[in-house]
Amino acid sequence: MTSKHDEKWYNKKISRRDMLKLTGAGVAGVAIGATGLGGVMKAMGQDVFEVVADDSTTENKVNFYGTHQSGIATPVQKHIYFASLNVLFTSKAELQALLQKWTPLMVRLMNGELMVDHATNVRVPTGDTGEASGLDASNLTITVGVGPSLFSKLNMKQLQPKALKDLPHFPKDQLQENLTGGDLCIQACADDPQVAFHAVRNLVRAASGLVEIHWSQAGFNSFPANEGTPRNLFAFKDGTGNPLVTDKKAMNEIVWVQDGWLKNGTYLVARPIQMHLETWDRTSLKDQEATFGRHRESGAPIGKTDEFADFDIEEKDLEGKYIIPETSHVHLAVKSGAKMLRRSFSYASGVLSKTGTHDAGLLFISFQQDPAQFIAVQNSLGRLDKMNEYITHRGSAVFACFPGVEKGSYLGEALFNSL
Amino acid sequence: MTSKHDEKWYNKKISRRDMLKLTGAGVAGVAIGATGLGGVMKAMGQDVFEVVADDSTTENKVNFYGTHQSGIATPVQKHIYFASLNVLFTSKAELQALLQKWTPLMVRLMNGELMVDHATNVRVPTGDTGEASGLDASNLTITVGVGPSLFSKLNMKQLQPKALKDLPHFPKDQLQENLTGGDLCIQACADDPQVAFHAVRNLVRAASGLVEIHWSQAGFNSFPANEGTPRNLFAFKDGTGNPLVTDKKAMNEIVWVQDGWLKNGTYLVARPIQMHLETWDRTSLKDQEATFGRHRESGAPIGKTDEFADFDIEEKDLEGKYIIPETSHVHLAVKSGAKMLRRSFSYASGVLSKTGTHDAGLLFISFQQDPAQFIAVQNSLGRLDKMNEYITHRGSAVFACFPGVEKGSYLGEALFNSL
Repeated sequence: MTSKHDEKWYNKKISRRDMLKLTGAGVAGVAIGATGLGGVMKAMGQDVFEVVADDSTTENKVNFYGTHQSGIATPVQKHIYFASLNVLFTSKAELQALLQKWTPLMVRLMNGELMVDHATNVRVPTGDTGEASGLDASNLTITVGVGPSLFSKLNMKQLQPKALKDLPHFPKDQLQENLTGGDLCIQACADDPQVAFHAVRNLVRAASGLVEIHWSQAGFNSFPANEGTPRNLFAFKDGTGNPLVTDKKAMNEIVWVQDGWLKNGTYLVARPIQMHLETWDRTSLKDQEATFGRHRESGAPIGKTDEFADFDIEEKDLEGKYIIPETSHVHLAVKSGAKMLRRSFSYASGVLSKTGTHDAGLLFISFQQDPAQFIAVQNSLGRLDKMNEYITHRGSAVFACFPGVEKGSYLGEALFNSL
Repeated sequence: MTSKHDEKWYNKKISRRDMLKLTGAGVAGVAIGATGLGGVMKAMGQDVFEVVADDSTTENKVNFYGTHQSGIATPVQKHIYFASLNVLFTSKAELQALLQKWTPLMVRLMNGELMVDHATNVRVPTGDTGEASGLDASNLTITVGVGPSLFSKLNMKQLQPKALKDLPHFPKDQLQENLTGGDLCIQACADDPQVAFHAVRNLVRAASGLVEIHWSQAGFNSFPANEGTPRNLFAFKDGTGNPLVTDKKAMNEIVWVQDGWLKNGTYLVARPIQMHLETWDRTSLKDQEATFGRHRESGAPIGKTDEFADFDIEEKDLEGKYIIPETSHVHLAVKSGAKMLRRSFSYASGVLSKTGTHDAGLLFISFQQDPAQFIAVQNSLGRLDKMNEYITHRGSAVFACFPGVEKGSYLGEALFNSL
């Protein structure tokens, strides 16, 4: 196709959104009707135009800039696309260049804008893969972290935080290499699955030749009409015991790292956990509740009615038995004394070929100021956890998530300034 | 756990929703406060209560009953969970019993109700897996069909419609057994992924020992804030050329079977299509548009600006060349002269281990009054379709979807009455 009408195709297909952006670069805030198109067309000599905020997206927009990265203390969204990446480069300078490149792109994505504005040259690949065109920001958050393996690969082990190391092997782990580890992670969460995927797809594309996807997992959370805690695929509410993200003191004690280049950052633990739904569904409600230590419908600790009632593991009945079973998941987790911020998502698609059962489960994600918190909980669960009959941990990864970015800075700057 | 407080757990956790249902069975429409709980408890001797419409769900509810099954002419929802099942039984009577069992459960699911109301016996598995508790009906539709293989398995080939046979092999097919065929299908579509999955999970569970899942695929559609046609992962609008589902004449000509036991039913073709996103993303906008035959941003036929403009494949430019490239996907599809109702969903999760590329694509679904319509389009695409460079058909299945159900009847009754 090289005939004359090629150029026409493109010229005719400038959307209202693009017009607003284009005209915004010249005359901010002026509403332009179709009659303004001629003038706009003439302005299209350059390939990339200035970023102009798109008013239509502000309603469902999370701010990129701040003390902390988004997607951690942000209210949990409906969808996630989580990607673990391996880097193909070997120097700290290349990592820095990549993060500098990603920073403004992350701003655009979280603004609900295209990666770059439309260019006139239709003969080269487009700057944006385009599937989020017409969708709003959908509360997109993007959270980037670095894994332990990155520091040896880039010969910068002196910068590796002591707490950042591969998680130990836990008794019931059946980890698959293709769901474990990674040099970098991108956690994209949004209220729309296509917006979340679009973010990861385009950031990876912008890093073409520099990174490859090691593993990824999409997931969802479904919120009751009256809001409240979403249920996992075992039908239990997930996240009830979380600290209040608005409680600055709790967040500083539990989630945010307090010193070093990771100050105001946090550690992300990601564990794809297969849930054996068919086995679970053959279990009585009583046993299901004894497995969690909570009531299924209300989410309350066993023996109570309020989801957010204190989870008192010491309470006993008249016969001297623990009211919340000692082998229940939450009993053991609370017993560890360790806290973290859980931010998990369910997944369900396909059938496991060996068993013909649902390929479904939980992409467990937690944030903590030290992975030791997660390790303490997991060790307390150990072999005792009644939940072990119903789940299998298939993957495991830990990442140090950079602090937030202030305007004029870029993602991870503290790391590069620290030595 | 056998101590006395077990029963208490359950008694304390009856939700407002359950109360409404329980009390509705006795005194319809009377609002009951917490003080009414005592009386309700006494009524709980029986295991299953009468179905009572739940007012809180009516807003996002699709009617089960009607001339046609839901999920075909229903406006396309945001999520799908599609399951292809194989049957483990061998008689027509068992199929009939299964469909008679499923019918009232489908009504309940589409009403946003639990599969059965809570029972007092917490020592047996629950009647509902529970993960949709608190979610509304989310416009859930459930569409059930029968595959060609079912008729030989049940020794009822005399009832098999002539048009219902496995699709032929197409030139570029690379079908996987674990994504192909099936005796029965359940297409659950909803605006919430957990509601869609919950429907399939519970219908399969209700058929425990009678069916096994052969393959399944979840998918999504993302709608622009101002509504309109959703984009697939190649960023092109998908479904523009569909007949209007409100156009009765068109639907009778294109979608609904006109005679036999399948009258007012239709044929569903399902094809999981892998999309090679990385290859696509390296392609210029011009080539992408020449591949589809449409403009990416507007969705209009090449050379036009309106998405819904006539797709005139004969139009030529001054040099005598077709304006819409002859090898473009839509050009070839239109050329076939065949029409169908497309109702597809995207999927994206994970990485293909061999290539390290996105495991993503389209769960293509079309409805037509004869699979010959799909075959005609696919044959016209054949080896010419420029799209072949970017996609691979990984699975294929065809199902005859029963007509709708009138009150007092059950799903598929016409099949069993026809001989």
